[in-house]
Amino acid sequence: MPTPTNRQIILKSRPAGRVTADLFELAETPRPSPGPGELLIRILYLSIDPAMRGWIAESANYSTPVPLGSPMRSFTLGEVAESNHPGYAPGDLVYGRQGWREWAVSDGADIDRKVDRGQGPVTAALHVLGLNGITAYFGLLEAGEPREGETVVVSTAAGAVGSVVGQIAKIKGCRAVGITGSADKVRQCLHEFGFDAALDYHAEADLAAALGAACGQGVDVYFDNTGGAISDAVLAHLNVGARIVICGTMGIPDVGPNDPPPQGPRPNRALLVARARMQGFLVLDHMHRAGEAVAELSAWLREGRLRYAEDTVEGLENAPDALVRLLAGENRGKMLVRIQGGGGRNR
Amino acid sequence: MPTPTNRQIILKSRPAGRVTADLFELAETPRPSPGPGELLIRILYLSIDPAMRGWIAESANYSTPVPLGSPMRSFTLGEVAESNHPGYAPGDLVYGRQGWREWAVSDGADIDRKVDRGQGPVTAALHVLGLNGITAYFGLLEAGEPREGETVVVSTAAGAVGSVVGQIAKIKGCRAVGITGSADKVRQCLHEFGFDAALDYHAEADLAAALGAACGQGVDVYFDNTGGAISDAVLAHLNVGARIVICGTMGIPDVGPNDPPPQGPRPNRALLVARARMQGFLVLDHMHRAGEAVAELSAWLREGRLRYAEDTVEGLENAPDALVRLLAGENRGKMLVRIQGGGGRNR
Repeated sequence: MPTPTNRQIILKSRPAGRVTADLFELAETPRPSPGPGELLIRILYLSIDPAMRGWIAESANYSTPVPLGSPMRSFTLGEVAESNHPGYAPGDLVYGRQGWREWAVSDGADIDRKVDRGQGPVTAALHVLGLNGITAYFGLLEAGEPREGETVVVSTAAGAVGSVVGQIAKIKGCRAVGITGSADKVRQCLHEFGFDAALDYHAEADLAAALGAACGQGVDVYFDNTGGAISDAVLAHLNVGARIVICGTMGIPDVGPNDPPPQGPRPNRALLVARARMQGFLVLDHMHRAGEAVAELSAWLREGRLRYAEDTVEGLENAPDALVRLLAGENRGKMLVRIQGGGGRNR
Repeated sequence: MPTPTNRQIILKSRPAGRVTADLFELAETPRPSPGPGELLIRILYLSIDPAMRGWIAESANYSTPVPLGSPMRSFTLGEVAESNHPGYAPGDLVYGRQGWREWAVSDGADIDRKVDRGQGPVTAALHVLGLNGITAYFGLLEAGEPREGETVVVSTAAGAVGSVVGQIAKIKGCRAVGITGSADKVRQCLHEFGFDAALDYHAEADLAAALGAACGQGVDVYFDNTGGAISDAVLAHLNVGARIVICGTMGIPDVGPNDPPPQGPRPNRALLVARARMQGFLVLDHMHRAGEAVAELSAWLREGRLRYAEDTVEGLENAPDALVRLLAGENRGKMLVRIQGGGGRNR
């Protein structure tokens, strides 16, 4: 009988600039077996996230770089296939960090939580009820501190984090204004996610002016997933006491570790005049409180107050392309990879 | 008998770039007389402050621009000469915003407080016990939130605000590191103001590296009076959870209202990686609590825990030059102008 295999995708080299699919390669190893206290997980879905750009970079970051020659780090949804671990039984769904592969052995340390099939569609654990939703929840509510009647602006508004930020802003009685990258995503923001206004930054000759008109009364909270020229436009409209949550930097060009950092207008005077606050937010600092966020998010989901979109690619081998598409803003909804033959059953 | 005169300095034009003395001119008007409910103030000292650059600029700011043709706005120390106001008697010392002139009539609205001669040397009301000290006090303690054992970095460390920030940091059990602009000011920081370390940014070939060495354990609080290249160097050393208080922008070049804003490295990734906060601070938002700050600052002053330096220029007509010198960093201590014949008695 041939040894069962385990396909995985390995990080082969680091990006010098833009992330490309050829940084990765497919490798085939024997399927692992769980030892004492361990469990075997069959991966069903991979979550593809903008943070991956940081994980594969060489420069110091808030998490250690993925080592060259190792499987790509990834949030995953899996099903327990075998278990010698007292906390897990075959059939359990688990949300964790098993990486880009078909099978993984775990001692439980890289599992974030068991997924309750009653909380919503199982893939929701990878976005609205996972890292993206938790990011939106704590980033907006704790770092952004929105108050009823205020205006909340979010960039990458149709994305997995941005769409939840906009919907939570609405739930909290704020005006939600989205900035996104296509006419299709503008429609999605307005009609699927319920934003009050949405702008396609590619289509606006003067984004700052268009944003001023869309906001009407200025910007109180800016949930910043991009940085760059988009954020420069937002800074022109800060109200006194505005809060900026720096959650991502997708709008700032990739540069190599020895290149000069990307330049832009200095924000100091805008922050000073508005007595505004700009704060870096990392969801990993809040994961010990994930349960709070998931409980409230799943209630909103069941009540129909929280909607989402998925963009699912089939097959482990297509994960690198999915990442490239995501970083180019070409996805429409949360980017997922369904592992072929993984037996993923959604809904 | 000739009408008694009142010399004043008028704002003649707005700066296109750098502030120069010829933006101002001396004007002579009749000395005013107080009407019912008013008092006449003889100005003793003018306070010369970096914020004046903003007050004379055309662009929208946190205070309305000084109108062309009007006396220059300024914090002042004066003595009541005549009074029809129930709250003030001749001989009272008052700290207020009477502007660059010899005499001013007031209904009390532009007086911030009466100065108690027992609180310290009277000119202290213009710096350690005035706007500069109050700025340092609330900016550091409320926006910076220093904790014992942390490292506090301050730019323009020998200045009227920076020197108080460093001393309060020491009082609170922090390590204080100053950045300043000459070897003489470095000595002043170390020997007069008690900083643990001080750097002359002009003398350092690699300011970021020198700062890293001076801080040892990274930067927890940065009290930013400059922005620009100095602050870029500080951002390379932020500890997780660092707080940056943006108080001034003296290190960012002046540009005209239609010029592109000054460029620099984008701070987003540094803030994100350190989950740091950058916050604009304006002391005027805190003036309703000035009494709290002055009470504690004057206690420290009397106990000898707070030192200061003054750089006093004689004569109203030299106020524009004093401002130019201040903005060029050529002052040594708090920049004051003593009004000739104003009868100022210090100590």
